[in-house]
Amino acid sequence: MMIDCGEGTQLAMRRMKLRFSRLSHIFISHLHGDHVLGLPGLLSTLALHGKTGRVTVHTFPEGIDLLQRVVSFFCREPGYEIVYEPVSYDGGIVYEDNALTVEAFRLYHRVPCVGYVFREKAKPRHLVGDMVKFLEIPISKLHGIKMGDDFVKPDGTVIPNGRITKPADPSVSYAYCSDTVYDPRVAAAVKGIDTVYHEATYIDADMSKAHDRGHATASEAARIALEAGASRLILGHYSKSYENESRHLAEASAIFPNTILANEGLTIDLL
Amino acid sequence: MMIDCGEGTQLAMRRMKLRFSRLSHIFISHLHGDHVLGLPGLLSTLALHGKTGRVTVHTFPEGIDLLQRVVSFFCREPGYEIVYEPVSYDGGIVYEDNALTVEAFRLYHRVPCVGYVFREKAKPRHLVGDMVKFLEIPISKLHGIKMGDDFVKPDGTVIPNGRITKPADPSVSYAYCSDTVYDPRVAAAVKGIDTVYHEATYIDADMSKAHDRGHATASEAARIALEAGASRLILGHYSKSYENESRHLAEASAIFPNTILANEGLTIDLL
Repeated sequence: MMIDCGEGTQLAMRRMKLRFSRLSHIFISHLHGDHVLGLPGLLSTLALHGKTGRVTVHTFPEGIDLLQRVVSFFCREPGYEIVYEPVSYDGGIVYEDNALTVEAFRLYHRVPCVGYVFREKAKPRHLVGDMVKFLEIPISKLHGIKMGDDFVKPDGTVIPNGRITKPADPSVSYAYCSDTVYDPRVAAAVKGIDTVYHEATYIDADMSKAHDRGHATASEAARIALEAGASRLILGHYSKSYENESRHLAEASAIFPNTILANEGLTIDLL
Repeated sequence: MMIDCGEGTQLAMRRMKLRFSRLSHIFISHLHGDHVLGLPGLLSTLALHGKTGRVTVHTFPEGIDLLQRVVSFFCREPGYEIVYEPVSYDGGIVYEDNALTVEAFRLYHRVPCVGYVFREKAKPRHLVGDMVKFLEIPISKLHGIKMGDDFVKPDGTVIPNGRITKPADPSVSYAYCSDTVYDPRVAAAVKGIDTVYHEATYIDADMSKAHDRGHATASEAARIALEAGASRLILGHYSKSYENESRHLAEASAIFPNTILANEGLTIDLL
């Protein structure tokens, strides 16, 4: 899954040796060029690489017509299906499978813009093999027990779930807050999420510029992470007017210590 | 002036610290994504950098409507004028000023495609200052003398141009042969050009693949340079299926020794 697709995304994927064939969903936050202009090239390259199956592009309805035109012009016979799924500025679930939901939520930029929250569903608990064998639990009961059921023996004795299972692996969660001004409603939308990415275009010295242009400062991103109760904050989307991001990091860390600077190629384990 | 604008062109320009403000003309060879998908991003970035004046995009009529739509969607108030000039597949002069002509000529790819020839016009000869002073040549005559006139003294004596001027600097010429199969008509179109860029997607071992896909091998590029009487050949547009371009260079150099491999960042003095 990919969030946003600026110009050069396919080039970055090549540099990082990511496999094009595994891409299935692209979630677009808003229709500014630096978040979407890599799509036609990426989708064309997928075709050249013999991609099969389907890629779903999630974006606002006003972008779908334009993207379809451009992509179909430059990628005439893709060999795989390209599906465009409209996203509402009001947010809502945009993807769901057995293991994961993806939900859009409103951000506050110069144009309609959404963030995305990825939530792993609760995972099955781990069976304790020796107990399963000892109690001769029938296979038909195992799924329910993994999901938290107690086991009732033929004689009516109840074996509590905690004695035959170990806790499930934790479910990870990730929120992506693309271009936005600081707004407490963003913190509410990502409440309880472990890892929060939040744009940090500017530093505090340029706060008025940030507000004028619909962006946030690094310390504002940190306030969002703090208010949301996140365990980790990732900054990104830095203005090119700074030589480096040391002040972004310092200003955010003063408010929210567990802050990381995102830069091209950063790979994070969400666990 | 820029020829073609694939995805990531603006990023390459930044890496090379080229000045966005100096760009005035973009000549597109054909409407495949790898030659044109960098345009919307580049034109948007020009606007962000406060570009004024005008940028003219030269391309086939069937691309103009689509480009206009995309560019105007992502770059709403550019602050400079974007002009689209239609190019004919039959070729012809597409640009001319006091110093330079740019001419399109037909190439032979899977879709309509043109190359571009850049020809500096003849330059004025250099005046010999001492002679101008000694002969008391009036200022009004100097332009004509630089262009080759003799000087006629008030007493009717004719001073031949060669005694009061030195030869002009040579005029440079450059031809860009974008995607094309080998075709002797290309050599005819670039006859007498000093520096010829020619695509060399494949090596000879993959010649049938080259022909199937409307591309050339490095040795075919060399034949074009040889038949055209070029003084220098630049290869480019290599297939990503090769680890490096050593065989391209070897195969082309065997036919046309003064061959250079183009790669990102290559800067060439045309003199």
